[in-house]
Amino acid sequence: MKIIIVGATGTIGKHITAAFEKEHEVIKVGSKSGDLQVDISSPESIEKLYEQAGSFDALISTTGHGHFGPMASMTDKDFKVGINGKLMGQVNLVLIGQRYINPKGSFTISSGSLSEDPIFAGLNLSTVNGALDSFVKAAAIELANGVRINAVSPTVVEESPVYFPYFPGQSPVTMARVTQAYIRSVLGPLTGQIFKIY
Amino acid sequence: MKIIIVGATGTIGKHITAAFEKEHEVIKVGSKSGDLQVDISSPESIEKLYEQAGSFDALISTTGHGHFGPMASMTDKDFKVGINGKLMGQVNLVLIGQRYINPKGSFTISSGSLSEDPIFAGLNLSTVNGALDSFVKAAAIELANGVRINAVSPTVVEESPVYFPYFPGQSPVTMARVTQAYIRSVLGPLTGQIFKIY
Repeated sequence: MKIIIVGATGTIGKHITAAFEKEHEVIKVGSKSGDLQVDISSPESIEKLYEQAGSFDALISTTGHGHFGPMASMTDKDFKVGINGKLMGQVNLVLIGQRYINPKGSFTISSGSLSEDPIFAGLNLSTVNGALDSFVKAAAIELANGVRINAVSPTVVEESPVYFPYFPGQSPVTMARVTQAYIRSVLGPLTGQIFKIY
Repeated sequence: MKIIIVGATGTIGKHITAAFEKEHEVIKVGSKSGDLQVDISSPESIEKLYEQAGSFDALISTTGHGHFGPMASMTDKDFKVGINGKLMGQVNLVLIGQRYINPKGSFTISSGSLSEDPIFAGLNLSTVNGALDSFVKAAAIELANGVRINAVSPTVVEESPVYFPYFPGQSPVTMARVTQAYIRSVLGPLTGQIFKIY
């Protein structure tokens, strides 16, 4: 199986890459590193990525930034960090990728628990994650040729201790458990699902 | 109570306006009609609206457009119709409005059932509505001075028969029931809620 992983060198991406590399052809994509580069805020850059990669069986995205900060001082410009980054970046990976993906292929994008479990200063990412969860549910009923789509929605992960103080009383999840969710999405039969890892 | 209704002349807005006008001071806002005008895609226009309206007790928004069309041909530009309109328009009404609203005031925005109940050609609005639902949950934990926020999430309404064919097997809801949800949000005690009318 030919699998494109956008965000392959990130905290979660490197574990997913290691898991799939054993038995599959993995194309590692980063903003500056990897086999191919992409700026997910640019539809033109995404189109070029797919032209370079050619047809594929699975696209995994673990990428995209949001704004982290208190609501009281949040501006339109702050809010658009997550809208143009984590949200539209992943939306465009799917909208453009649907023309390049093989029949019975799959898209797996990354949202996060803040969609339904908000934390202080997480307003932008809550909104973006909620958008991505609903995007997946709606895209699943329209994708053609048996192509599937799911989201993996983790809470804070064990390898990001810098974020622990923002998640009081929440147990960080293991990278092994998060990685399993991406494997389940790519190799399993389900579509339109939010795999909640929390 | 001084209530600003953005979208006051719309299908839902006119019913809400009629319900509140009996006992409250209502400022009707439209894109071209009403007591005051606003372009919700412009933060500057929203700031000007609040400067003109002055401090208030409740903001209701029933406004904002999305793109309706099949996923297969959907572009970044199509998708941004809902992102810049219904999503960022309502987000900015709250982000900017939090500086003008009276203590114990309330924001009530409008999402819709497509967030969890997708229909064909509704991908953009599903995404936007999911974003708004999560925005409300997250904003509720950060708003200061006892200010509340809720969303009303209706399915297709009885006065929009043009949309009935897109909602097969779904029962259109009455304007009376939808109006009650806005009244509950403004006059009731709850915050961070999605009032689902379907």
